[in-house]
Amino acid sequence: MRIVKGRHPPGTAPGTLPSQDAAAGPVRARIITFDAAEISDANLLDPEGLEAVRDGLSAWLDIEGHDVQLIAALGSRLEVHPLALEDVLHVGQRPKIEDYEESLFMVLDHFSTTADGDLEKEQISLVLQPGLVLSVRERASELFAPVRQRLEGGRGRIRTSGAGYLAYALIDTVIDHVFPVLEGIGDTLEELEASILENPTSDDLGSLHEVKRRLLLLRKSMWPLRDMLRNHILLESPLFEPETRLFLRDAADHATIAVDIIETYREMVASLNDLYLTNISIRANEIMKVLTVIATIFIPLSFIAGVYGMNFDPAAGPWNMPELAWPWGYPMALAVMALVACGLVIFIWRRRWL
Amino acid sequence: MRIVKGRHPPGTAPGTLPSQDAAAGPVRARIITFDAAEISDANLLDPEGLEAVRDGLSAWLDIEGHDVQLIAALGSRLEVHPLALEDVLHVGQRPKIEDYEESLFMVLDHFSTTADGDLEKEQISLVLQPGLVLSVRERASELFAPVRQRLEGGRGRIRTSGAGYLAYALIDTVIDHVFPVLEGIGDTLEELEASILENPTSDDLGSLHEVKRRLLLLRKSMWPLRDMLRNHILLESPLFEPETRLFLRDAADHATIAVDIIETYREMVASLNDLYLTNISIRANEIMKVLTVIATIFIPLSFIAGVYGMNFDPAAGPWNMPELAWPWGYPMALAVMALVACGLVIFIWRRRWL
Amino acid sequence: MRIVKGRHPPGTAPGTLPSQDAAAGPVRARIITFDAAEISDANLLDPEGLEAVRDGLSAWLDIEGHDVQLIAALGSRLEVHPLALEDVLHVGQRPKIEDYEESLFMVLDHFSTTADGDLEKEQISLVLQPGLVLSVRERASELFAPVRQRLEGGRGRIRTSGAGYLAYALIDTVIDHVFPVLEGIGDTLEELEASILENPTSDDLGSLHEVKRRLLLLRKSMWPLRDMLRNHILLESPLFEPETRLFLRDAADHATIAVDIIETYREMVASLNDLYLTNISIRANEIMKVLTVIATIFIPLSFIAGVYGMNFDPAAGPWNMPELAWPWGYPMALAVMALVACGLVIFIWRRRWL
Amino acid sequence: MRIVKGRHPPGTAPGTLPSQDAAAGPVRARIITFDAAEISDANLLDPEGLEAVRDGLSAWLDIEGHDVQLIAALGSRLEVHPLALEDVLHVGQRPKIEDYEESLFMVLDHFSTTADGDLEKEQISLVLQPGLVLSVRERASELFAPVRQRLEGGRGRIRTSGAGYLAYALIDTVIDHVFPVLEGIGDTLEELEASILENPTSDDLGSLHEVKRRLLLLRKSMWPLRDMLRNHILLESPLFEPETRLFLRDAADHATIAVDIIETYREMVASLNDLYLTNISIRANEIMKVLTVIATIFIPLSFIAGVYGMNFDPAAGPWNMPELAWPWGYPMALAVMALVACGLVIFIWRRRWL
Amino acid sequence: MRIVKGRHPPGTAPGTLPSQDAAAGPVRARIITFDAAEISDANLLDPEGLEAVRDGLSAWLDIEGHDVQLIAALGSRLEVHPLALEDVLHVGQRPKIEDYEESLFMVLDHFSTTADGDLEKEQISLVLQPGLVLSVRERASELFAPVRQRLEGGRGRIRTSGAGYLAYALIDTVIDHVFPVLEGIGDTLEELEASILENPTSDDLGSLHEVKRRLLLLRKSMWPLRDMLRNHILLESPLFEPETRLFLRDAADHATIAVDIIETYREMVASLNDLYLTNISIRANEIMKVLTVIATIFIPLSFIAGVYGMNFDPAAGPWNMPELAWPWGYPMALAVMALVACGLVIFIWRRRWL
Repeated sequence: MRIVKGRHPPGTAPGTLPSQDAAAGPVRARIITFDAAEISDANLLDPEGLEAVRDGLSAWLDIEGHDVQLIAALGSRLEVHPLALEDVLHVGQRPKIEDYEESLFMVLDHFSTTADGDLEKEQISLVLQPGLVLSVRERASELFAPVRQRLEGGRGRIRTSGAGYLAYALIDTVIDHVFPVLEGIGDTLEELEASILENPTSDDLGSLHEVKRRLLLLRKSMWPLRDMLRNHILLESPLFEPETRLFLRDAADHATIAVDIIETYREMVASLNDLYLTNISIRANEIMKVLTVIATIFIPLSFIAGVYGMNFDPAAGPWNMPELAWPWGYPMALAVMALVACGLVIFIWRRRWL
Repeated sequence: MRIVKGRHPPGTAPGTLPSQDAAAGPVRARIITFDAAEISDANLLDPEGLEAVRDGLSAWLDIEGHDVQLIAALGSRLEVHPLALEDVLHVGQRPKIEDYEESLFMVLDHFSTTADGDLEKEQISLVLQPGLVLSVRERASELFAPVRQRLEGGRGRIRTSGAGYLAYALIDTVIDHVFPVLEGIGDTLEELEASILENPTSDDLGSLHEVKRRLLLLRKSMWPLRDMLRNHILLESPLFEPETRLFLRDAADHATIAVDIIETYREMVASLNDLYLTNISIRANEIMKVLTVIATIFIPLSFIAGVYGMNFDPAAGPWNMPELAWPWGYPMALAVMALVACGLVIFIWRRRWL
Repeated sequence: MRIVKGRHPPGTAPGTLPSQDAAAGPVRARIITFDAAEISDANLLDPEGLEAVRDGLSAWLDIEGHDVQLIAALGSRLEVHPLALEDVLHVGQRPKIEDYEESLFMVLDHFSTTADGDLEKEQISLVLQPGLVLSVRERASELFAPVRQRLEGGRGRIRTSGAGYLAYALIDTVIDHVFPVLEGIGDTLEELEASILENPTSDDLGSLHEVKRRLLLLRKSMWPLRDMLRNHILLESPLFEPETRLFLRDAADHATIAVDIIETYREMVASLNDLYLTNISIRANEIMKVLTVIATIFIPLSFIAGVYGMNFDPAAGPWNMPELAWPWGYPMALAVMALVACGLVIFIWRRRWL
Repeated sequence: MRIVKGRHPPGTAPGTLPSQDAAAGPVRARIITFDAAEISDANLLDPEGLEAVRDGLSAWLDIEGHDVQLIAALGSRLEVHPLALEDVLHVGQRPKIEDYEESLFMVLDHFSTTADGDLEKEQISLVLQPGLVLSVRERASELFAPVRQRLEGGRGRIRTSGAGYLAYALIDTVIDHVFPVLEGIGDTLEELEASILENPTSDDLGSLHEVKRRLLLLRKSMWPLRDMLRNHILLESPLFEPETRLFLRDAADHATIAVDIIETYREMVASLNDLYLTNISIRANEIMKVLTVIATIFIPLSFIAGVYGMNFDPAAGPWNMPELAWPWGYPMALAVMALVACGLVIFIWRRRWL
Repeated sequence: MRIVKGRHPPGTAPGTLPSQDAAAGPVRARIITFDAAEISDANLLDPEGLEAVRDGLSAWLDIEGHDVQLIAALGSRLEVHPLALEDVLHVGQRPKIEDYEESLFMVLDHFSTTADGDLEKEQISLVLQPGLVLSVRERASELFAPVRQRLEGGRGRIRTSGAGYLAYALIDTVIDHVFPVLEGIGDTLEELEASILENPTSDDLGSLHEVKRRLLLLRKSMWPLRDMLRNHILLESPLFEPETRLFLRDAADHATIAVDIIETYREMVASLNDLYLTNISIRANEIMKVLTVIATIFIPLSFIAGVYGMNFDPAAGPWNMPELAWPWGYPMALAVMALVACGLVIFIWRRRWL
C-alpha cells in the first residue's frame, strides 16, 4: 500500500507526461457514439476515430489502461489542458474536480477487493466536454460494463440526456463500488468483535490494524470525493442538464453515506482496540491472581516444612528442635500448616481473588 | 447491527425499485382526510383511494410496511421523483431533506428498544406536498397512533393547520421517541458507573462496549437529523405555514438536546472506560503487592531453613556446620529468621506497600 | 445526575404543560415595579397583580418555584407562546434564546455547590417584553437578592435603564455564580495534583472521575450559554437599549472566560488521569523490581542449599555427595552461595534495578 | 497556578472597582509626551498631570502597579468606560480587544520566567485614544524600557507615527517576550526527550506534567491574543495609521508563530508521554523476563533436589528411595537437573526471552 | 531540531536586520535576465548589477546564503519593505504570503534529507515584483538548478510567461521536493510496521518517535504552505498572468496531496504506536503465563517434597511421620505429586493458558 507513487523528479516542467510503462497490461480503447435513436460502438485506435462523432450525437471515449501515446494524441486533439493530461497519467491524485473553461476534469478513486482479499485502488479520470465524455482507467476491467449495457439497452434517461448524464452514470457506478468493499469490512469487524469479546488472539490485532489501514485509505479518497460532488463547480456547470443535477445530488448523498459508514467503522475499530487492550489486561490480571494465590498459600507452608527439615541436633541441647522428638510433633506441624493455609485462603477470599 | 444494508449491485440504473421482499411482515395502509370540521379514515388499497381527497381537505397517507407495488403506484400517481421512491424503499439512508420543487422528501430514523433490550432502528420516509402527507414506515407499529388520536380528538391546532403541521407532528413524534432510548442508556451508564467504581467485572466491559456502539448508531442518525431540521430548505419551504415554523424550531431544539445528551454520554463512556482500565491496573497492583510482600519475606527465610537442612557431616571437620551441634543453635536460627523477617517488614512498611 | 429528565410521553401535543408536582417546595412570587423615581414591591398571587404595572414603569415578576397554575395564568395574560411556557416548566432545556416577535425567551442554567459538596443545576427562564421581565426559577433561593437590593438601593443604572438592563443584570448574576463553582473545582484539582504526584490513592481516581463529570455538565450548559449571549437575536433586539449592549458584551465575555476555564480544567483532568496511570505503572514496576531482585538472588541460593540437603548415601559410592564429608565442605558451599549472590547483585546493579 | 482569581461576589453591580490591595508592591506612573521634534518624561501623580499634553503631541501614560485611586481618576478624566476600568483592575481577563467608540481597550498577557524557573503571567491593559496611550501593568518592571529607549533615542518611526504606532510597539514587545519562554520550554523538552529515550525516571514525569501545564496556560492566552490581532476591530480602527497596519500584521504573524510553536510542543509532550509509558512497559517486561527465566529454570531444579531430600526410609522396602543408595545416585541426580536446565534454557531461547 | 531560533531580544525595533553571521557558508548570488528571445546569466556582486535589467526583460535574482549587506542593499534598491527584509534574514518564519502593494513577499520551507538521514529544513524567501523575482535561500545548493536549466534550455512557457510564471516554477520546485522526503518516511513506516507486527524491538519505538517528530515538523510547514497557495492574495494578484493561475492551482493541489499524505502517515504512526503497545502487553502476558504455569505446578510439588523432608523422629511416636517407614511410602508420595501435577495441568489447560 504505497501512498507516495513514483513521481517526476522535482523541478520537472509541469505538464510533462510519463514515458510508457512497458510492464503495463493490455490497453483497450473504445468509442461509443449515441443519441436517443441510434448507437454505435467501435475500437478507438487513434484520434482519427473521433471523426465518427457527428453533430448532435454524444460520444463516450472509454480507455482502459495507460496508452501514453494514444492519450496524448487524444488530449491534444480534444484540447485537454496539459496539467489535466499529466494528472490522468500520474496516478496518486486525490479525487478532485477542475474547471478548464470549456471542459470539466474529474479524478475519482475506484475501490475493489482482489481475489486474495486485498484492497485495490484504481484512479479513474473523466474529462467532460459538450457532447463528449473521456474516461481513462488504470487497467482493463468490467467496471463500466453495466453502463454500456444500459446504453445499449437503449431504455431510460441514459440515451436521451446527453454526455452530462453519462458522466453522472460513470461517477455513480464508481461510488457504488465502494459499498461492497465497506460491506466486507463490516463483516470483518463483526467477526473481530465476536472474537475479541470472547477470546482475543494475537491475529485479531493484526486484522484490526489492517482494517484500520484500509479505512484510512478509503477515508483519504472518500472525503475529497464527497466534497467534489458538492462542489459548486460541478453543481453549476452548464455541462449538466438541470434535470441531471438531481441525480448528481443523489450521487453526493451516496458518497456522504459512504463517508458516514467509514467514520462509524473507524470509531468501531478504535472501540475494538480499547476492548482488546482491556481484555488483555483482564486476562493478565486473572493469571496473576492465580499465581499469587498459589504462591501466597504455598510459600509460607514450604517455609514451615523447611524449618522442620533443618538438621539441628536435638541431642546438643534441650532447645534444639525438641519438637522433632515430641510424639505428636508431626501431626502438630501439619495442623499448623493447615491453620496457616486456612487463614490465607480466608484472606484471599475476602479480597475476592477467587 | 449491520450498517451496510443490501443495496443494488453497482451500475444499476438510478431509481430502480427493489423487488418485493417475501419475508416482509403484514402491510397496513390507511388514508385519513380531514379539515377543521370533518375527518374520515379508510384503508388504502390502491391509488384509487386517493380520489377521496377533495379540494380543501388535507390528506395523510400512512403506510406501514414496504408494499413495493402500492408505493410505486402511489409514487407515480403523486409524481414523487423516482430517486425519492428508491430511497423510501431502500432503508439505510441517512436522515435528510430533499427539495423536489412541488414537494419535500424527508428521511428520519426512529429508534426504539425491543423487548429483549436491543436497539432497533426504523427508517421513516415522509413526502410532503400541498395538502398531503405520505408517510412510509418499515413495519406496522403504534408509532403514529397518538398523532391519529389527536387528529381524531379534533382539538387543537392539528386539525386546523393543514398538512405542514401534520408533517411537523410526525417529525416531532419520531424525535421524541429517542428520549426513552437515551433514558435507558443513561440508566445503564449509572449502573455501570457504580459497578466500575466499586468492583469492575468483565461483563461491565462488554456492556460498556455495547453502549458505545449504540451511541455511535444514535449519533450517526441524530446529527444529520438535527442538521436537517435547521436546513433552510425546511425553514423556508412554503409548504409550512409561518405559524408552524415556531414548532419546527422547537423540534430542532429537541433534536439538539438529544445530540447534546448523546455527546455527553459518549464522553461519559470514554471516562468510564478510562476508569475501568485504571481500576484494573490498581487491582493488579494490589495483587502484585501481596505477592511481593509474601515472597519477599518468605523466600529469604526459606533459604535460611534450607541452609540448615544441608547434610554436611559435622564430624568431617570443625567448620562443617558446627551450628547444628550448638546447644542454642535452633533458637538462634529462629531468631535470625525473625530478625530478617522484621527487617523486611520494616522495609516493606517504609515503601507503603501495606 | 440524571440527564434525561421526565418528559412527556412521545406524541403528546406540543405546548402541553406538566401537572403540578406535589413534591415541589414552597412557591414565592413577587412583583416589583419601578422607574428612576419610585419602586414598589408586592407579592404576586394571580394575574390580577399585573394591574399594578402602570405605563412608563418597568416591572419584574420573579417566581421562585413551579406553581403551574400561576405560571399558566401569567403566561396566558402576557401572551407568552405555549412552546415557551412548556420549556419554562420542563426543566432540562439547554440554554437558549428564542425570538417570539414582541418578546424574547431565554433559558439559563444556574450552578451552585450544595452543602455536602454536590453540584446542583437549576434552570432559570427569562421572558423579556417591553417594560417587563418575567423570571422563573426552580426553587426559592437568594439568587436574585443582590439584584433586588441594587434596585431598592436606587443607585446606578439599574433603576434608569429599564427592563432590558434588568434582564442583563439577572443574566450577569447567573453567569457570575459559575465562578465560585469553578474555583471549588480548581481547588480540588490542585489537591488532586499534589496527591497524585506524591502518592496516588484509589480515592483520587474517584475524585478525578467526579470532577470530569462535573466539568462535562458545566460544559454542556456553558457552551450554549456563551453562544446565546453572542447570538444576533440578543444583540440586535430592540428590547435592549444601545447602552445596555456594552454590558451584554461584558456578560458574554464572562461566559467566554468560564468556557475557557472549563476547557483548561478538562485538559488538566486528562493530564492528571495520564499522570495517575503512569504513576501506577511506575509503582507496579518498582514493586516488580523488588520482587525480581529478591527472587533472582534467593532462588538460585535455595537451589544450592536444596542440593546439599539431598539424602544420597555417601557410603554407597565415592561419587555420592563426597562434599558432605569434606572438612571444608560447608564453608565451601557457603562461599559458592556468596559468589553466586555477588554475581547476581552485580548483574542486577548493571541493569539499574536498584 | 490559580486560574480563577478573586472576583467580585456574584450580583455585584458591573463596573465596580476593587478596593486597593494593601499588599500590592510599589506603584510607578509616568507620562511621556512626544512628537517628532521633542519629548518630555515626567512622573504622573494625579490626573492634573494630563494637562502637560498639548495639542499635536502624543502622550503615553505608563502605570506600573495597581494604584486604584489614580487609575479611577485617570479613567474618569479620560472617559474610559467603567466596564473597561473594571477589567483593567481585575486581572484574570482573557486577551481581547473592545471598541468603545472613541477609544480601543485591549488586554494582553505578558509571560516571563521567574528566577526560580516558574512561569509568571502578568495582565497588561492598553487604552488607545486619539493621541494617547494608557498602559497599565500589574507590577513595576523593565518590560517597556526598550520602547522608552527607542522613543528617547528619537530615531525611527516611533517618534513620527503617533499613538497608534506606540500602541503597536507595546503590543509587539509583549508578544516578543513569549519567545524566550517558549525557548526555555523547548530546551526542557529536548532534555526530557534525551532522558526518556535513554533512562526514564520518575522526575521526568513530573517535569512533563509541568510542561503540559505551562503550555496549557500559554495556549489559553496566545489563542485569543492571536485572534485579537486579526480582529477587524483592530485592523479597521482609524486610531491606527494605514502604514501602521503592516506592522500590526507583522505582530499578528509573530503571535501565529507562537501559537504554532505551542501546538507543536503540545504534540511533542503527548508523544513524549506515550514514549515514557511505553518505555516503562518495556522495562517492566524485561524485568519480568529475567524473573521468569530465573524462576522457570530453578523452580523445577529445586523440586528435584527437594524430592531427594525426603526422608523416606530406604530400609523400609525396596521401593523406598533406592536411588539414595545407588553408587551413581548423586551424579545421576545432578545429570537429570542439568538436562532439565538445558531443556528449559532451550525453551526460553526459542521464545527469544534472552 | 530547535523550533525557536535565535531571535532579536524583545523590544527591538521592527525591521532591524541581524548582523552578519560569521559562521555562515559561502554566498552565491546570480542575476539572470531573459525574455523569449535572449537570456544572460551573471554574478551579482552589488545592487549595481541590477542595471543590467532592461525594460521588457524579466530578471531573476537568486541569492544562496545570507549575505546581510548585499540583501540589505538590494532590498533598499528594490524598495522591499523592512519587515519583509527582516523575515528574509530571520529564518524560522512560517510559510506565508504578504501583499506589499507593488510586490508580493512569500516564505516557503524546503525539506530535504541529509546524507545521514536527518530531516533538514531551509527557508526560501521570494519577492515578486513586476518583471522581477528575488529568491533568497539559506545556503548554496542545487535546489533551483533544474529551473535554471529549463530557462536556459529556452523551451516552453518559462521563457515566455514572465516573472509570475518563474515564481510559480520556483514554488513548484520547492513543493515537489517534499515528496521524496515523504517517500522516505513511507518506507520507514513500512519497515516499522513489518518489524512491529513480527517482533517489536526497543529501537522501533525510537524510530517511531523520530518519524512522529518529522511529521510534526512537516505538518507545521505544509499546512500554512497549502493555505498560502489557496490565499486570495496569491490567486488575485495581477503579478500573475491569468494563464499562470491554472499552474498555481496545480501547485496548491500538490501541496494538498502532501498534506493528505502527512495526515495519513500521522494516523499510521498513531496506529503503529497502539500496535506496539498492545504487542508488548501480549508478550508480557505470554511470559507471565509461562511463569505462572511453572510456578503453579512446581510450588505445590515442592511443598510436598518439603513435608517429607522434615526431620520428625518416627521413633518418638506412632503419629510421627509413619509414612517414612511404609514400604511403599516413596512411590506413594511420587504418585500424590503426579496426581497434583495432573490436576494442575488440567486446571491450567481449561483456562487456555497453554
